[in-house]
Formats: sequence, structure tokens, C-alpha cells
Amino acid sequence: MKIALAQINPTVGDLKGNFEKARDFVQVAISCRADLVVFPELSTCGYPPKDLLNDGGFLSENEEWTRKWTDLSTDKVGILFGAPSLKWGKLYNSAILAYRGKVLAARAKSLLPTYDVFDEARYFKPGPGPENPIPFKGIRLSVSLCEEFWNCKDFWTTEECRYSKDPLADCAPDSDILINISASPFALGKQELKDRMLRHIATKWGKPVIYVNQVGGQDDIVFDGRSSAYDSNGNMVETLKPFEEELSIVTLEGSLRGRLGASLALVGRSDAEEAHDALVLGIRDYARKTGFSKAVIGISGGIDSALVACLAAEALGAKNVLGVSMPSKYSSEGSRTDAEVLTKNLGISFRTIPIGEPHSSYMRTLNPVLKGGSYSEEVELWEENLQARVRGTILMAISNKEGRLLLSTGNKSEIAMGYFTQYGDSCGGLAVIGDLFKTLVYKVAEDVNSRANRDGRAAPIPKATMNKPPSAELKPGQLDSDSLPNYGLLDKILMGHIEDGKSPEEIAESLPEDLYAKNIRDPKFVREILDRMNRQEFKRRQLAPSIRITKKAFGTGRQMPIANGWRP
Amino acid sequence: MKIALAQINPTVGDLKGNFEKARDFVQVAISCRADLVVFPELSTCGYPPKDLLNDGGFLSENEEWTRKWTDLSTDKVGILFGAPSLKWGKLYNSAILAYRGKVLAARAKSLLPTYDVFDEARYFKPGPGPENPIPFKGIRLSVSLCEEFWNCKDFWTTEECRYSKDPLADCAPDSDILINISASPFALGKQELKDRMLRHIATKWGKPVIYVNQVGGQDDIVFDGRSSAYDSNGNMVETLKPFEEELSIVTLEGSLRGRLGASLALVGRSDAEEAHDALVLGIRDYARKTGFSKAVIGISGGIDSALVACLAAEALGAKNVLGVSMPSKYSSEGSRTDAEVLTKNLGISFRTIPIGEPHSSYMRTLNPVLKGGSYSEEVELWEENLQARVRGTILMAISNKEGRLLLSTGNKSEIAMGYFTQYGDSCGGLAVIGDLFKTLVYKVAEDVNSRANRDGRAAPIPKATMNKPPSAELKPGQLDSDSLPNYGLLDKILMGHIEDGKSPEEIAESLPEDLYAKNIRDPKFVREILDRMNRQEFKRRQLAPSIRITKKAFGTGRQMPIANGWRP
Repeated sequence: MKIALAQINPTVGDLKGNFEKARDFVQVAISCRADLVVFPELSTCGYPPKDLLNDGGFLSENEEWTRKWTDLSTDKVGILFGAPSLKWGKLYNSAILAYRGKVLAARAKSLLPTYDVFDEARYFKPGPGPENPIPFKGIRLSVSLCEEFWNCKDFWTTEECRYSKDPLADCAPDSDILINISASPFALGKQELKDRMLRHIATKWGKPVIYVNQVGGQDDIVFDGRSSAYDSNGNMVETLKPFEEELSIVTLEGSLRGRLGASLALVGRSDAEEAHDALVLGIRDYARKTGFSKAVIGISGGIDSALVACLAAEALGAKNVLGVSMPSKYSSEGSRTDAEVLTKNLGISFRTIPIGEPHSSYMRTLNPVLKGGSYSEEVELWEENLQARVRGTILMAISNKEGRLLLSTGNKSEIAMGYFTQYGDSCGGLAVIGDLFKTLVYKVAEDVNSRANRDGRAAPIPKATMNKPPSAELKPGQLDSDSLPNYGLLDKILMGHIEDGKSPEEIAESLPEDLYAKNIRDPKFVREILDRMNRQEFKRRQLAPSIRITKKAFGTGRQMPIANGWRP
Repeated sequence: MKIALAQINPTVGDLKGNFEKARDFVQVAISCRADLVVFPELSTCGYPPKDLLNDGGFLSENEEWTRKWTDLSTDKVGILFGAPSLKWGKLYNSAILAYRGKVLAARAKSLLPTYDVFDEARYFKPGPGPENPIPFKGIRLSVSLCEEFWNCKDFWTTEECRYSKDPLADCAPDSDILINISASPFALGKQELKDRMLRHIATKWGKPVIYVNQVGGQDDIVFDGRSSAYDSNGNMVETLKPFEEELSIVTLEGSLRGRLGASLALVGRSDAEEAHDALVLGIRDYARKTGFSKAVIGISGGIDSALVACLAAEALGAKNVLGVSMPSKYSSEGSRTDAEVLTKNLGISFRTIPIGEPHSSYMRTLNPVLKGGSYSEEVELWEENLQARVRGTILMAISNKEGRLLLSTGNKSEIAMGYFTQYGDSCGGLAVIGDLFKTLVYKVAEDVNSRANRDGRAAPIPKATMNKPPSAELKPGQLDSDSLPNYGLLDKILMGHIEDGKSPEEIAESLPEDLYAKNIRDPKFVREILDRMNRQEFKRRQLAPSIRITKKAFGTGRQMPIANGWRP
């Protein structure tokens, strides 16, 4: 039996477009004499459809398209796909096996994830489970949906097991192959875990495994695809390209066979490379799926905007990206030059629009009331913010006039600490690197430069940009380190808390000794950082979606109260 | 037996503050010789604690405070309160009955709501249910939590029943009184429904009912309190003040007795009055719980900002509110005067800051690039937006400098259609009337004026403001009706879809015949409106929280994809 893994990139809600894509994939699979084509979870509507599932009109249209998906099956080829399906007035997250133009069998997902970015209990009833294998062309298929693969009681610790039941345990023993259809978001480090888990499942049950995952960016989430197949000894026999649509065929004849050396695809990918690919796809799909072909970015000469410009040029094509330098009296000459050099290296358009005039007119207007500028020796916070807001306003004018998607350039460390200007540098439709701590920003930037070198191109990001100390350049001689701990330290604290859920005590203990700051291994110091982070929730709530690349990003997956009396 | 209904206004996360409040309430209850004091759901931490519940440190601190709540009970008085509680590594939404300094019994919520603003399955495991009544001082208490009262199979239709089981059915028959602890958000029209439901429950089981609900604003949600008590014939014998903290005592001696004529409190409240009270509390609590005492509002002379100013003056005190008029060359003389008259009527501070200078300096800076202004006869969209962004920037500068909470003034009709400027008039920490359709804005404004008249004060909102046709005043002679259907019609369409979930066909059918627009009863016209609404999700995603007063508000309770291929 030949089984096609159809790793598609659907658009949420685009029932017609997703169907047409499926039809094309099925055509190719048929031409390769496939017996079965397997699509990802909720492939009719794309994942996650969110509150579209509360719209009766959407659901009934989805039923119509589900029938058309069913019609794609023939006497020769079965289609296994995912769809929301209504039964007795309840909605289920279903896997449907269509054959000869009819529904041969359907399975409803029995484990509904409700953590992080998932909220499936908001929409679906859990399927009854346990389910028997589905007989198809003389083979017994165990069909499961995403989360149902993630609760194996001898792979996870008791604490990690979220559900009391393991649906595989009911169905796997009597089946010939375990098929899982998924929409499992990308996160750094997850691929290695998933590979181990899939191998474990194959060897534990002594059955071949086929795993088909969605690919593509959808708002803040990126799906990396990497659909794969394992033989019953747990050897990976196929893995599809990460971050791309692809169709591939494996053969089940006694054992499962695919591409020789498939597992090599997993070797030697660094976090920086993974993040890079996820972000490029995240930008490309956000733009495409919301109808943008062009982007605009404020280029400061610093590392954050430089990296965003590189990623955008790769995602959308250099000719579609505009970089705008908006110098003020506090901008160093170096910054202006670095901005221009970067855009030349990338081949993107470049404009310089100094903010001096609008800025001084605001100061003339506001100074009599707010007594900044000439009234005060120090540049006050509102004046710093004012510059960032002038820049945001200029970028939004360009965005409005030229139909360009404004990409914002804040990183996760800044966003955590509220170290940005609301309605200023935070303006934009997509926060490209909002889930990258500053230390990772540097690593991805270095990776971008080395890739270029490897390809025989000049490194796009100027050395000066890589090396200069981070600064918002909103007052004379300002450095980020005036207001924040150094990023190496800060990121360790933030990552320990946000991603690893450590207590201030555990974090303090894990920090390196530092000659310059003897008190940093004090939980009190860590608590102050986390407290400051908590108080900035009101600013984060109004940010553009950040492309999620870690297991815990700000946004959908981390829902904190704004009014919050808790002090860590 | 004397039972105290302790309707408290907790702050989410403020474990210490909430405990101290409880201690004060218990003191008063003891002085009134209460036998039992009943607090709302999750009263230790406030509702909804959201992802604080994922923080181990928060949970263990909560356990400590839960012990202190338990210690409030004595030989004389029992304390029934709500807390998240860990048991065997799982988290439950629990009701705890403490007596003599010990936990006498605990109940875990078995029905966890996951719709609209609720996402309890994200945090909690459902309690096992069914539970036996708890014997306390010779009385058998049936204790339930919020949602568990909302699934009575002969009150709701089969379709409306969200869960297969009705926990009351297990426990009610063998108990002497049904007590429900709740954190049930306010929505227009819900009180009448709730009253009918509580009466139904009392009469169905022939038992007295005590219902204790949280009060207060928490981010976008307002809880109206209105804790109440019914005798076994379904007569309301007590109801606590809406939108205020209060403690009241009812007596159970055979039958349940409370205040004579309690149910009169429900009579004759209009939607406008209800919305008014909810919004005032929403502003007051958002400011208080996030540490603001002062606010700033851009006053345009239009109805939206006028209403927000009135509500803010009431919530925070007139002396703490600043209204800023920011006229442009497109502002009518009437608008400026109306703005000033309003602020005088209210007794709030007033400043005029014309936007002409910053606006022209932007135009000088941007015109060579974007070719608006003198290059074009028409005022282009980016130029319109520019004015709104200058205003937003000025207001944010004032907010930053003076520590004032900026209140934004967009209404639900505008927000639905994206008829606002991102980072312009949408700037602010709280969108006060973001859940009021324009037609309701007028009604609440009229109510504000009539209240003033009833109290012998001058009506604050000028007649001209009430009567002029809505305009953004961003280009010459501009009216909202140039870009939108009239609000009477638009609001019917939006409400039909958003709040009542009607299809375009059903909405079209329900629209009034209109001589001026014969085609409005065409589903195609309705679809165009809804399609336009869907495409504006990217703007809504970055809005400040809107105070929720309807059963379906934009924000937490309505989670739509931004990249969305569905066309209604």
C-alpha cells in the first residue's frame, strides 16, 4: 500500500482555497498511484479556526466543503483528512476517512488541549474514545488526532501526562499502522522531542507510524510541517521538508519504507537556523494571507531592525521591502550610515525622513503645558516617547498610503520589560522578533550573515550594527544598560521564569557569578525584574501578534491579567 | 440560622488585600451574629486570575492565604469561600467550608465554562460530582459553584444545555438550602434571566436559594454583584446592591427570610441605566486596580467623548479628569464650543491644544514623499489618519507626563467597522464605550442628562452634541454616513450577527423597510457589512480592553483569526 503524506499550508477560513489545494495534492498522489492520501488536522478549514467555529454559517459551509473533500476519494484512493463536524448538535474535531466518494469512517478527537495557544474545549466536545482500528484495503488503520499522540504514559512523567487516558492503548494493539493527523505549532527544541516521542510510539507498539502535520504561518503561530514516517522498529523512513508544503509517498509492505537517509534531515540544525526559517515563513504567510505584498520597516541602525529587514527581504523579496531611517538629533552618525549600508547590502528600498521638524513642532506645542525641553535639563520620558511616536506616525502614513505592511521590530526582552514606546516603535501589523530574547536576536543575525557568506554574498548586517552597545537613542548617550540589566543576565532570568516556570529562588541560584554585580544571585533582584515585567501587561496587551518560536510566547499563549495585585 | 451574603470586590492576584477585605466582612458578620458567611467564587484570588494559575509560586502563596481564610472561621461562624486548590497535582476551582479553624468540607466545580470570556478548562480539572450535601449546624447545605446552577434541564432548552449532567439534581433533594458561589459577569438583560432562573431553581426543588456573586471591574469585565436569596416558593427575599460591595444577612428558620420588598430593587431599570452603572464601576476599578487616580480624554465635541467624560467624572471625581480639545482646520466652531461647554458643565479641567502646527510639520515632511495635501484635491486616508495620530500622540504625552490614564472613546459600531485610526483615536489604556453600539451611546448619554436634571443639576452634555450628525471631522464636511450606513441600520445588522448569531438572511429579513435604501433587505448587503467587519480584525486585536456590557463583546470573548479567508 502506498500512502501519501500531504503536508499542506491551508489558510484559516478559506474553505474553497483549501479544498482546491487538497484537490491538487490528491491529483499528484493519484499520479503516483497512492492508495491513501493523509492530510493534517482540520484541513478543510485550517488550524486554528478560532471563533469562526461559533458561526453557524461557517459551519454549514464547512459541511458542504467536507462533502467535496469526500468526493475526492475514488475506487482507488482513500482520503484521510481533518474537519470540524457536527453530530447531534455537538461539534467534534474529526478525522474523516473517505473512500469511493463516501465517508468510510470518522474519528472524533478525544483529548482536547486547553493550554498555551490551545483552547479546543472552547469549541469541541471530546470524542468518546476508545475507537477500533479502521479496516481499509486489507489494512487496519489506527487513526488519531494530534494531542492523542502526546499522552503516552511511559514516555512522559506522571506529572507531564495531562489526561488520564491514552487513546493509543485502546487502538494500537489491533492495528497495522498508527496514523496521526496534526496541527502542531513549531517551537524551538520541539522537533527533537517529537522525533523521540514518535520513535517511542513506533517501538512501543511495534507498528509503523505516520504523522502528518500542517505547515505555514497563521497569525502568531507557525507550523513547521515535518510530517514523518517511522517503521515498526522506530527508524525514521521519511520526513518532509520543514516550513514548506510537500507531498511524499511511503510504502507499506510488511514494513514501512520511504526515503533512504530521511532522518539525516534532522541533523545539525541550530536554534538560530530554525528560528530564521520559522520567522521567514511567519512573515511571508502573514502578508500573503492578509493580502499584503509589500512591507515597510523603520531602520535605526541597531540589530533588531537590521534583522527584521533581512528576514522581510527574504520573505517578501528585496524589491518589496522599504527601509526608512528617521534620524533625530540624538541619532549617532554611525547609526544613519549603518542603516543605509544595511539596506544597500539587502537591495531593499531606502528613504531617510528626519523627525526633527515634527518633533520640534510638538515640543513647541506641548512645552508650555508639559514643561519639558528647555524647561528641564533632563530629557523626560514623555519626550523620549514622543520621538518614537513621531517615527510610528511616519511609518503608518507610509503604510496607509502605499499599502505596505508595517513590521515592528521589538524583541522579547524589551517587550517583557515594557522597554518600548506604546504607539511608537510598537506600531505595526506583525511583531516579527517579539518572541526572540535579545541574545537570540544576535545569534539569528549572525546566522543571517554567515548564510550570506556561505552563499558567496556579502554579509548584509554591518559589523558596527553587530557590535555596538544596544541603545534606543532617545536622549544623549543613552544605553539600554542604563535602564535594564545586561541582556545576557536579563534573558536568563526571563527565560527561566517565562519558558521554564522557575521560581525566583531557582532562577537566582542558576545565575552565573558576576564580579560586577554581587547581588544578582539574590531572589529579591529576580523578583524585582519579574514584578516589573508583570506591571507592563497593559502595554503588551495592545501589541501586534508576535511570531511564536518558543514554547511560551507573549500573546495568545500567555494570558495575564492587567489589573494584577500579585507581586512575585 | 443567620447567613451573611458577603458581596466583595476583590482584586485579581491581591491575595493579601482580598484576605483583609474578607476579614473585615467577617468581623461585621460576626457582630450581626451570623452563623455562616458566604463569599463569591475564587474569592481568595479574585476572578478571573487567568495565567497566574500557571505560576507555581502564586499557587503556593494562594494555599497559605487559603489557610488564613480558614482561620477566620470560629466556633460560632462558618466561612464558605472560593479558592483554587491543588489536590494530587491537579488544580480545582473549589468552594471551601471552614468551621472552627478547619476545612469542614470542600467542593470542586464540576462544570467548567469554556465559552465567551470563560476558559476554565485551561486551568482546572472538573470536580467529580455528584456531591452530598454538607451538614453544618444541623442544616444540610447544597454547595455549588457558578456554572453548576446554569444547566437545569427543564429551564433551558436541550440546545442551550451545555453539559450532560445537572449537579443540582444529585445534591438538591437531600439538602435544606441551595447555596451557589459565583463570579458571573454583568451583561445587559442577564439580570432578568438570572432572576427567573434562580426562582425556577428554588421552586423546582422547593428549597431556599442563596446566590453570592462577585462585584467589581476587572480589566474588561464587570461583575454586578446582585447577590440574592429566594425562599422555597421562589420569592426573592434579599438582593444586594448592584455594582457595589455589600454585606447582608438572611435568616433561615423553617423558611428563608430577608428584607421586605427586596425584589423591588429589580424593577424599572433601563438598559441605559444599567450600562451607565457598569461603565462607571468599570472605569473606577480599572483605574484603582492599576494604580491610576487621574484620567485624560480627548474631547471632540461629539457624543462619544462627551459620554466618556461624564462617566469618567462620575467614576474618578471631576477634579481628577482632564478634557483636551485638539481642534484642526476641519473642526467646526460648534465642536470647539461644545467641548468647552461640556467640560464646564462637568467641572473637569480643560485644555485646548490645536494640532495645526504638528500636523503641518508632518505634511511638510511627508508631502514630498507621499504626495498628499497640495498635490491632491481630496484629503487622502493617510492624511485623515495623521490628524488622529497627532491627537493620540498629544494625549499620550500628557498621560506620560502627568500619570493620567488615557481613556479612549470609540464605540462598538466604529470598532466593528474599523472606522477609527489605529494609534490615533484608539490610543488609551481602557476603551470605555467599546461595547456600546452608537445607538446605545445616545441612550446612555440621554440618561446621563436626565439623571442630572432629576438631581437638580444642569444636563452636562450640550444639546448640540446630542443632535449633530456624527462626524470624524477629518476632512471638510465629512459625515460618518459618507462611509457607513446610518447607525440605526448598521447597529441592527451588527447586533443581529455579533450578539444573536443570526445569518445574513435572517438579519436581512428582520430589517425595517426603508424608503431611502430599497436594497438593504438584501442578504448581499448584510454580507458586505459583515465581511468588512471581519477584515478589520487586525485593528481590533491591538485595541485597549473595552468594558464588556453585552453578552458578546469584542476582545476576550470573541476570538477571531486575523488572517481569515472566510467571506460570510
